[in-house]
Amino acid sequence: MNEQVENFNIYRSRMNEKIMGADNIVLKRLFNLDTNAYSKGSLDTTTKEMLGLACSMVLRCDDCVKYHLQKCKELGVNKEQIFEVFAIANIIGGTIVIPHLRRAVEFWEALDE
Amino acid sequence: MNEQVENFNIYRSRMNEKIMGADNIVLKRLFNLDTNAYSKGSLDTTTKEMLGLACSMVLRCDDCVKYHLQKCKELGVNKEQIFEVFAIANIIGGTIVIPHLRRAVEFWEALDE
Amino acid sequence: MNEQVENFNIYRSRMNEKIMGADNIVLKRLFNLDTNAYSKGSLDTTTKEMLGLACSMVLRCDDCVKYHLQKCKELGVNKEQIFEVFAIANIIGGTIVIPHLRRAVEFWEALDE
Amino acid sequence: MNEQVENFNIYRSRMNEKIMGADNIVLKRLFNLDTNAYSKGSLDTTTKEMLGLACSMVLRCDDCVKYHLQKCKELGVNKEQIFEVFAIANIIGGTIVIPHLRRAVEFWEALDE
Amino acid sequence: MNEQVENFNIYRSRMNEKIMGADNIVLKRLFNLDTNAYSKGSLDTTTKEMLGLACSMVLRCDDCVKYHLQKCKELGVNKEQIFEVFAIANIIGGTIVIPHLRRAVEFWEALDE
Amino acid sequence: MNEQVENFNIYRSRMNEKIMGADNIVLKRLFNLDTNAYSKGSLDTTTKEMLGLACSMVLRCDDCVKYHLQKCKELGVNKEQIFEVFAIANIIGGTIVIPHLRRAVEFWEALDE
Repeated sequence: MNEQVENFNIYRSRMNEKIMGADNIVLKRLFNLDTNAYSKGSLDTTTKEMLGLACSMVLRCDDCVKYHLQKCKELGVNKEQIFEVFAIANIIGGTIVIPHLRRAVEFWEALDE
Repeated sequence: MNEQVENFNIYRSRMNEKIMGADNIVLKRLFNLDTNAYSKGSLDTTTKEMLGLACSMVLRCDDCVKYHLQKCKELGVNKEQIFEVFAIANIIGGTIVIPHLRRAVEFWEALDE
Repeated sequence: MNEQVENFNIYRSRMNEKIMGADNIVLKRLFNLDTNAYSKGSLDTTTKEMLGLACSMVLRCDDCVKYHLQKCKELGVNKEQIFEVFAIANIIGGTIVIPHLRRAVEFWEALDE
Repeated sequence: MNEQVENFNIYRSRMNEKIMGADNIVLKRLFNLDTNAYSKGSLDTTTKEMLGLACSMVLRCDDCVKYHLQKCKELGVNKEQIFEVFAIANIIGGTIVIPHLRRAVEFWEALDE
Repeated sequence: MNEQVENFNIYRSRMNEKIMGADNIVLKRLFNLDTNAYSKGSLDTTTKEMLGLACSMVLRCDDCVKYHLQKCKELGVNKEQIFEVFAIANIIGGTIVIPHLRRAVEFWEALDE
Repeated sequence: MNEQVENFNIYRSRMNEKIMGADNIVLKRLFNLDTNAYSKGSLDTTTKEMLGLACSMVLRCDDCVKYHLQKCKELGVNKEQIFEVFAIANIIGGTIVIPHLRRAVEFWEALDE
């Protein structure tokens, strides 16, 4: 696995464990709910992950973008489709999103290694 | 057509015309590009409109939410699916999105009349 | 009760019922979690409501501000304290928050009627 | 004076007085500082008001946009220039800014009456 | 002192000095006002620092979160209380806040070293 | 050229090429439009770059701030003027902007080397 991807996942897991360990009931349930929101329902998981990706991009959260890019890759979303999600996010969110687009493209390529 | 929906569309069209009439080339092209972004590509138009809806909701833009709700309705997205989009947007964006969810639900119902 | 306050509460309740009625499990749990987050823990409810108020103000959500103002009033927060919360929110969020401050002050007075 | 413009100014003045009347030292100084920031320095007041307008637009604050539009009009900024400010704000902030652009154009016209 | 905490404080002080050195009267007064806003008034400093922390978190400013965490630690806020502030900020701001929560938890632990 | 400035420009160019290479028509046109928006019109390029700088700062995008600082420097904007733009952005956007101000000041100095 690419180093950037690996470091991202390791840090994410390590800190999530600490957060769960703090035993705050509201945060625990929010994490749980987060998982539920993306599980298959009337919409399939691929659509839901693309929704998560687009929202993360317009809200300009690099880590959230990376997380959903990884999920999309696992679910078989291809490059052309990912760039159409990027295009919508950049039109809606404006050029302020472009620096996040750059980092997203870098991470997307890292996922291929 | 429901009065709220009609007024929304009339105001939107009227002001868009004024904006186009001002003849600013950058704004004209941005409006054009906005239309292009949602046309069928590797992703179908329904997926794209749902992406637009979710992004509009996390960015808390009532008018943008209304616009994409109308498009989703025209494309046959059903209530259960719309609420799954709402759920993802509210989990990502937090409870600060709830007042916009209320107005979205009201508009969604108005679209049925 | 003041008319502005009453209309706010009626609309809020009516739309919340519709949202609950749609039976989306993620949204239902999020609403539930929202209630839990403000219940007494290591921090008392008054502190928590002031946190909710300040966050709502910097995120510039008028309806959220109104909701927490009402809660603060019920819990006995006085005008001087409320204005200190306002001051922090306006320093952190900048002058872009001022229009929301104006509407908050109007609603705070309406709660007295 | 146009009714929309007049109501805007009356409400703004009335609420500002109430805020000043609450005698919170931090808010009072912030209001003061706000005035200072736009006074002539190395940059002229027209440039500063256009900066205020563009920032208000990307932050999507209708009232702030209206305030700076009024100032720009008083300082002699013309329609073509205003639309170039709008164009930059909409490119940077994306299509999410468009509903605010519509209301800005409406208010700009109201200022002419 | 932990290295992360020390580097954070050194950079912060060094750049603040440069900003003050530029002698812009508006920025100088804003920095001053920032200090005033958190001094004891009708609300105690601990409550005010928690307000600052929650607002910084929903606005997703890592450096601001770190600054207020340090202040809260100095004032004796304990881990359980801090996590209740985190919980409210994450419920209001949504899962988009979680990456900032991870970094906040890391910094909170660093403050203990 | 200073190392920070050089790395910034190299990464920016490299990722822009990749984005162009993906051949998404919407993103390509958006990049194009971005360039057009800042070209001379009724407003001169210096004013437009200062508008871009102020908007980038209130939206808290470090990379966007750096880009426009570089452009402003090339166009001859001096330190006092830059700090007046900073002052307006920090008053409008609040103290949440200060960490971005620190990084902006650091980059502005790097441009002098």
